[in-house]
Amino acid sequence: LTSPHTAEARVLVINTGGTIGMTLHDNVLAPKANAFVKNLRKLPILHDEIYAQKTCLYHYYGENSLVLPNKDSKRIVYTIMEYSPLLDSSNMTTDDWGRFGKDIEKNYESYDGFVILHGTDTMAYTASALSFMCEHLGKPIILTGSQVPIYEIRNDGMDNLLGALLIAGQFVIPEVGLYFHHTLYRGNRVTKVDNSSFNAFSSPNLAPLATAEVDILINWDTVWRANTTAKFRVSTELNRNVGLLRLFPGITAATVRAFLQPPMQGVVLETYGSGNAPDNRKDLLEELKKATNSGVIIINCTQCLRGTVSSVYATGKVLIDAGLIAGGDMTPEAALSKLSYVLAMKDLDLEAKKRMMSQNLRGEMRADFGVAKLCLSDS
Amino acid sequence: LTSPHTAEARVLVINTGGTIGMTLHDNVLAPKANAFVKNLRKLPILHDEIYAQKTCLYHYYGENSLVLPNKDSKRIVYTIMEYSPLLDSSNMTTDDWGRFGKDIEKNYESYDGFVILHGTDTMAYTASALSFMCEHLGKPIILTGSQVPIYEIRNDGMDNLLGALLIAGQFVIPEVGLYFHHTLYRGNRVTKVDNSSFNAFSSPNLAPLATAEVDILINWDTVWRANTTAKFRVSTELNRNVGLLRLFPGITAATVRAFLQPPMQGVVLETYGSGNAPDNRKDLLEELKKATNSGVIIINCTQCLRGTVSSVYATGKVLIDAGLIAGGDMTPEAALSKLSYVLAMKDLDLEAKKRMMSQNLRGEMRADFGVAKLCLSDS
Amino acid sequence: LTSPHTAEARVLVINTGGTIGMTLHDNVLAPKANAFVKNLRKLPILHDEIYAQKTCLYHYYGENSLVLPNKDSKRIVYTIMEYSPLLDSSNMTTDDWGRFGKDIEKNYESYDGFVILHGTDTMAYTASALSFMCEHLGKPIILTGSQVPIYEIRNDGMDNLLGALLIAGQFVIPEVGLYFHHTLYRGNRVTKVDNSSFNAFSSPNLAPLATAEVDILINWDTVWRANTTAKFRVSTELNRNVGLLRLFPGITAATVRAFLQPPMQGVVLETYGSGNAPDNRKDLLEELKKATNSGVIIINCTQCLRGTVSSVYATGKVLIDAGLIAGGDMTPEAALSKLSYVLAMKDLDLEAKKRMMSQNLRGEMRADFGVAKLCLSDS
Amino acid sequence: LTSPHTAEARVLVINTGGTIGMTLHDNVLAPKANAFVKNLRKLPILHDEIYAQKTCLYHYYGENSLVLPNKDSKRIVYTIMEYSPLLDSSNMTTDDWGRFGKDIEKNYESYDGFVILHGTDTMAYTASALSFMCEHLGKPIILTGSQVPIYEIRNDGMDNLLGALLIAGQFVIPEVGLYFHHTLYRGNRVTKVDNSSFNAFSSPNLAPLATAEVDILINWDTVWRANTTAKFRVSTELNRNVGLLRLFPGITAATVRAFLQPPMQGVVLETYGSGNAPDNRKDLLEELKKATNSGVIIINCTQCLRGTVSSVYATGKVLIDAGLIAGGDMTPEAALSKLSYVLAMKDLDLEAKKRMMSQNLRGEMRADFGVAKLCLSDS
Repeated sequence: LTSPHTAEARVLVINTGGTIGMTLHDNVLAPKANAFVKNLRKLPILHDEIYAQKTCLYHYYGENSLVLPNKDSKRIVYTIMEYSPLLDSSNMTTDDWGRFGKDIEKNYESYDGFVILHGTDTMAYTASALSFMCEHLGKPIILTGSQVPIYEIRNDGMDNLLGALLIAGQFVIPEVGLYFHHTLYRGNRVTKVDNSSFNAFSSPNLAPLATAEVDILINWDTVWRANTTAKFRVSTELNRNVGLLRLFPGITAATVRAFLQPPMQGVVLETYGSGNAPDNRKDLLEELKKATNSGVIIINCTQCLRGTVSSVYATGKVLIDAGLIAGGDMTPEAALSKLSYVLAMKDLDLEAKKRMMSQNLRGEMRADFGVAKLCLSDS
Repeated sequence: LTSPHTAEARVLVINTGGTIGMTLHDNVLAPKANAFVKNLRKLPILHDEIYAQKTCLYHYYGENSLVLPNKDSKRIVYTIMEYSPLLDSSNMTTDDWGRFGKDIEKNYESYDGFVILHGTDTMAYTASALSFMCEHLGKPIILTGSQVPIYEIRNDGMDNLLGALLIAGQFVIPEVGLYFHHTLYRGNRVTKVDNSSFNAFSSPNLAPLATAEVDILINWDTVWRANTTAKFRVSTELNRNVGLLRLFPGITAATVRAFLQPPMQGVVLETYGSGNAPDNRKDLLEELKKATNSGVIIINCTQCLRGTVSSVYATGKVLIDAGLIAGGDMTPEAALSKLSYVLAMKDLDLEAKKRMMSQNLRGEMRADFGVAKLCLSDS
Repeated sequence: LTSPHTAEARVLVINTGGTIGMTLHDNVLAPKANAFVKNLRKLPILHDEIYAQKTCLYHYYGENSLVLPNKDSKRIVYTIMEYSPLLDSSNMTTDDWGRFGKDIEKNYESYDGFVILHGTDTMAYTASALSFMCEHLGKPIILTGSQVPIYEIRNDGMDNLLGALLIAGQFVIPEVGLYFHHTLYRGNRVTKVDNSSFNAFSSPNLAPLATAEVDILINWDTVWRANTTAKFRVSTELNRNVGLLRLFPGITAATVRAFLQPPMQGVVLETYGSGNAPDNRKDLLEELKKATNSGVIIINCTQCLRGTVSSVYATGKVLIDAGLIAGGDMTPEAALSKLSYVLAMKDLDLEAKKRMMSQNLRGEMRADFGVAKLCLSDS
Repeated sequence: LTSPHTAEARVLVINTGGTIGMTLHDNVLAPKANAFVKNLRKLPILHDEIYAQKTCLYHYYGENSLVLPNKDSKRIVYTIMEYSPLLDSSNMTTDDWGRFGKDIEKNYESYDGFVILHGTDTMAYTASALSFMCEHLGKPIILTGSQVPIYEIRNDGMDNLLGALLIAGQFVIPEVGLYFHHTLYRGNRVTKVDNSSFNAFSSPNLAPLATAEVDILINWDTVWRANTTAKFRVSTELNRNVGLLRLFPGITAATVRAFLQPPMQGVVLETYGSGNAPDNRKDLLEELKKATNSGVIIINCTQCLRGTVSSVYATGKVLIDAGLIAGGDMTPEAALSKLSYVLAMKDLDLEAKKRMMSQNLRGEMRADFGVAKLCLSDS
């Protein structure tokens, strides 16, 4: 006897928490344990109970499984793994990133794709971190969530979950992506830009990987192509002694010194414009130099939403002299999680780690930014 | 004998420095003292030498004066006051803001409008600061600059300077504005979002005050209307013990504590989404509470480009309990300079200062954000 | 005994046809009679069966009624009136517009608002026509539809219907609107601009009336305010002898003459740029003049998506001399249906009709375009 | 003795007329013969007189030559060929397109690139026509113009001319392009969308070829690559019996019949949405069928700014049955001028011409639109 399920695509949905699964109690939105699967089952757009019964779905895949009503193509069966307790994304740390990675590694062979439900607040950080942690990835891992809970009458959760499932189940996009508002972005390229629109994320320096409006259109020219057949593995070792400091007028050397104190080992410095910092502030530059001399890796990223920090411009020269590494067009979110990943590598010395930080690893930066032709910069 | 200049508009241009006036030496862009006026005089779009000679312009207004070739309306005569040395905007501090304010105050009665040439890197900070410092303003003060020097063949400096002069000389917009790429923004609403496009600034939560394309269109519904006849004054006292701290996953209590050390008196905390911070981090919340208890004012602004932090939502409640003030839809730039301004007020006690921080002073925030109707937030 | 339904809002949904209710048969999308209500009832986001049973909804409102699951505010009960046969919007004519108007008039007192389901192809024409036909309107009439049928797994129909119902039932917006992709537009300001994106409509010269993302935000400054207490009436008399002609290089006098033949009485001429036509083509201008002399009203609208045709510019002067009326910033869709409405007025002579065409009747044009200050135009 | 000009790039500027060179007389903008070169010479950004004198520029290249002040790269010397009389773009016909083509052919070998100054009103039509007429093109031909004359104080003409010259002189882009507002578009992809913004053109279905902001960035992936070494030639034979008809609700069979009368040989029918027309109007479809049967080629293009008309959808089937050819994602401007070009081919029979119309010739349509996968369409 063969299973009726041989022609299906399987997606694992890891529900870590976030607005998408929240309900309103006493005017406060809060996550509710074990409610998500039950509630999804009532939404005919996200679950086809007749098919499930007919094919003994629960028998084969377990109680937490559902199946999309997509009749015109390979059915997408998805199984919800819910974290307990559910997590608020503003509480997440490197430990949580490690846990997500382990859960994907454990289930990698059993599924065609992965969807991670996550609060929007730090989704860009987690997506970036997973993109580095997942080495030789060959299947889609798509983070999504929503601005309004899926149980609300008017919500973006249903569209977001549905789109993420359809892409994760139907396309071999070997990337960590973030799907929101009909758009699939590369996970390490996004940043949250709006807290009141459904169009909450932006990928300022890279076009989307896919759009899902009347048709699902994959931008295959942009999708990362694996150039190795090495086995998938997740590097769940992460260095937690990393931080992000944004320059502002009048920042004191004392503040910078305090921020760079041990145990800090890696810092993203969000500078002005194309990578500028005060060049008349010897005290401040001295603190940066002391830190880099003592082995702290400092990445120079811009505060601007769009733009690049290049190593070839004259501006920002004082920061290169102070030992900083140009961050190219990386988002601060990508730079921070990349530091976490690279600093945890046990077999590399400091110079090798610095080199790695300035190289493109997962499409998180344009590869050639360092050798851009001379052009005019602003200050 | 009457002057031939009675029907002219007069604009004072304060050239503080920045890319707009830079020249290339040995592949490095640098400001060049006393070159700006001389160079402008060669650009027929920015100066009408025949008119100047005919009307003895230099005799009446001094050597550093120029006149636009706008023949169809009131001539705009402008006088350049150049700082020596010219300033790099990434070096600016509260001291510089104070100096700009004093120079405007000193010349207020003699001119119809003011244009401040400034590097783009911290232009949004300076524009915000001046908007608070200038009390009972009745004339336009417009900051501008450029991404490419005005002497380069293809540049945005000429358009930016010209547009700023035409608006400052022709319209009574009693605001501190920022003019860039055919658009006039309220100065305390902008942020620099792009380091490679001419369209470098964004006003994420407020529509522009004016656009200057085929026609100059003023959006009078948005322009601030003075509701007082009090005399103009500039408050050049500014508190420099203010800072800006951006949350990131894994931020430690030690980092927060170090940042909040005396002499720090006011901090903009850039939180997640609609004003969220880790609520499971007692150590971190404790540091914030200790600081607010000891008199540090902490403003809760969002990291998102667009959006509001409201005091009525349940999320962010832990931060209200920790004594933080909701920043509404203020930019971090506006919040930081407002702190600088408010904390310097000698006649106000701490409570009055806190109240002031949560009120709209110069159109820098939507007035009613605190009483917004209940709506769903994200995390 | 009182009804349990006293606190509800009632919306009449007129299902005229269109993609939103289509189903796929043999790879062809087609409307299916009497299927819509039945299918909606299975979607828990659009119908609360438990509430319906508990309150004897069908008893009170009839079998074709449904109720939204909006628990936090006044329940919205809506009743579907389905046309038989269902109409393809590309087949619609003035007769259909008249029928819609009559159905609204007949049911005006019984409902708080109206939603018209309609194919997207000519939705902008119908919305414009209804805006003129509905005189002294005091309740919302909202057209909507979708790019993908509501029964498809990934569709925009559910969001569009839901948003239209919530706005029609909760807000007193006395306008004919068009709701699409989270946005409410004034109906006589829109045009269809995209056939593959969910964001299919644009209102090029007027900001939206409302957006419905995380919150529903009404832009009350833009919403039309009734300045009369006259009784609502629908003028269903429409003149069908109207047409739309777009200029193109090399258009012949013969083509223009043929187009302007009787019984043609009103024409929208889509000209270049700010209202330009060949001024060296006497034959062509002669045909236009002959037509206007014989009583045809010709409105000059621009081919440009955004922009205005003003009567005060020198360009386009040959067209004013030929008797054309400047269309201001009206869309061609609005101008055509306005002609249909105005030409049908029995008590007005030609001059009065021409005057009416150049005046703002329902917010379809900026009122003051005719007296705009001199500005530069393009050719 | 060698010329000092061996290292220069040469650009021929054909000034056909348009706003860019107009001046204001009695409040009316009008072109002024022989004024352009003289006026450009006074603008130091567009001409370096010192270099001209030093290198005897006028001696070598003639009186109507100028040279850009671009000191950092190969000098761009440009020569103005001015039409007499200057043309208003709304008057242009196929005869003018032919003349432009001949002038380019005649001068093709002597220049590195070509810039055509042209009114904005029909610039998209001319750019499209030239793209077809120029066979085996190996050099850039760039149309530009402006919304405001180059002599006005605030104008877009200077930026547009400068950008077009720099691209035409420095890059081997073998395409007919249209440069406006810092952007180079493929000429047969654009349409004029705004009559009051400097950003007047849109390329709705294809990304720009280049942007020129802080840097000039060429999008080489999109630039057309010649796949032949055949000799450049211009096909100046054009068929003038072509027209453009836009559907509207209530269009009569009489109107359609009149429009399709001989001598009409090719028509662009602007249909609704994804290529729809009334399918219940036998009379109207009959007229279309009669025309195609008698040898008129009718192309089905959408009225929507963005979108595609495909031959594989069921909608629009009645039009395929009536003999229409699906226009894919061509603009109406491109389709009209392509008809003009194809219908003039003497060696092709009707079937070959029809095939040519449905094929991609110059990047004017996505090559594979006819075989797009099944997807949902709207009506």
